[in-house]
Amino acid sequence: MPRSPGPVAAEMLKKIHHIGVVVPNLDAGLKFWRDTLGLHFTKSATIEEQGVRAALLKAGESEIELLEPLDPENAVGKFLARRGGGLHHVCFETDDVVRELEAARGKGIQLIDQNPRKGLAGMICFLHPKATRGVLVEYAQPPAE
Amino acid sequence: MPRSPGPVAAEMLKKIHHIGVVVPNLDAGLKFWRDTLGLHFTKSATIEEQGVRAALLKAGESEIELLEPLDPENAVGKFLARRGGGLHHVCFETDDVVRELEAARGKGIQLIDQNPRKGLAGMICFLHPKATRGVLVEYAQPPAE
Repeated sequence: MPRSPGPVAAEMLKKIHHIGVVVPNLDAGLKFWRDTLGLHFTKSATIEEQGVRAALLKAGESEIELLEPLDPENAVGKFLARRGGGLHHVCFETDDVVRELEAARGKGIQLIDQNPRKGLAGMICFLHPKATRGVLVEYAQPPAE
Repeated sequence: MPRSPGPVAAEMLKKIHHIGVVVPNLDAGLKFWRDTLGLHFTKSATIEEQGVRAALLKAGESEIELLEPLDPENAVGKFLARRGGGLHHVCFETDDVVRELEAARGKGIQLIDQNPRKGLAGMICFLHPKATRGVLVEYAQPPAE
């Protein structure tokens, strides 16, 4: 008798790829997360199309992604104004962001991105926080190495 | 010539042990994080002294810790009332929570716990969010297996 394949969803989200943290100022953020906490700085970049300066710090197989908004009117800028910064989103790594997005859509989860788009972590998409009980969830498929 | 030992702080925080997520209701939270997102449920527990019901879900080497307050007046209850739930804290794993706490104290970081205490993840302590620019940071030393 063939074994039931069982739910495969557990394998689809492989790990926490990163946690997004909004900071008023990237240099001050690095001073805390890198210099005080001692996390290993990986890289920083300005992502014009998302209106942020970002820095990545390593923590095991995951990263902390610091985000400083370049525009007070974008989503990150509004979050900073409303909250003064803090934990912003959690990103799960997947092998197949298209499949993951379709699975979410099939389950009736509200989406921010109707299709995956290019982000700092590879091909990414965001679920809508309304669908996820207040937590902004991102899926990312890193570029093949 | 002896090599400089260099900074050891980067090795001290080994990985993201878990991310704490406050939910209005643990069963509804599990419905989303386990049944819809497909994360693997590990265990749940009522932690009377912290006034929460908690559930753990696995994501790679890290976990998502869902927290439902048992008392609207405790810290988690107030967070729920203020925010409606969401990302609450990030916990880093260390081999030595006493050493980590002393290092934080030595750097002048404000602490919530002056000494490590027993928590769901082992011996734990919390840094003060005022010290960490709005992010509640926990250190945890899991029990030896």
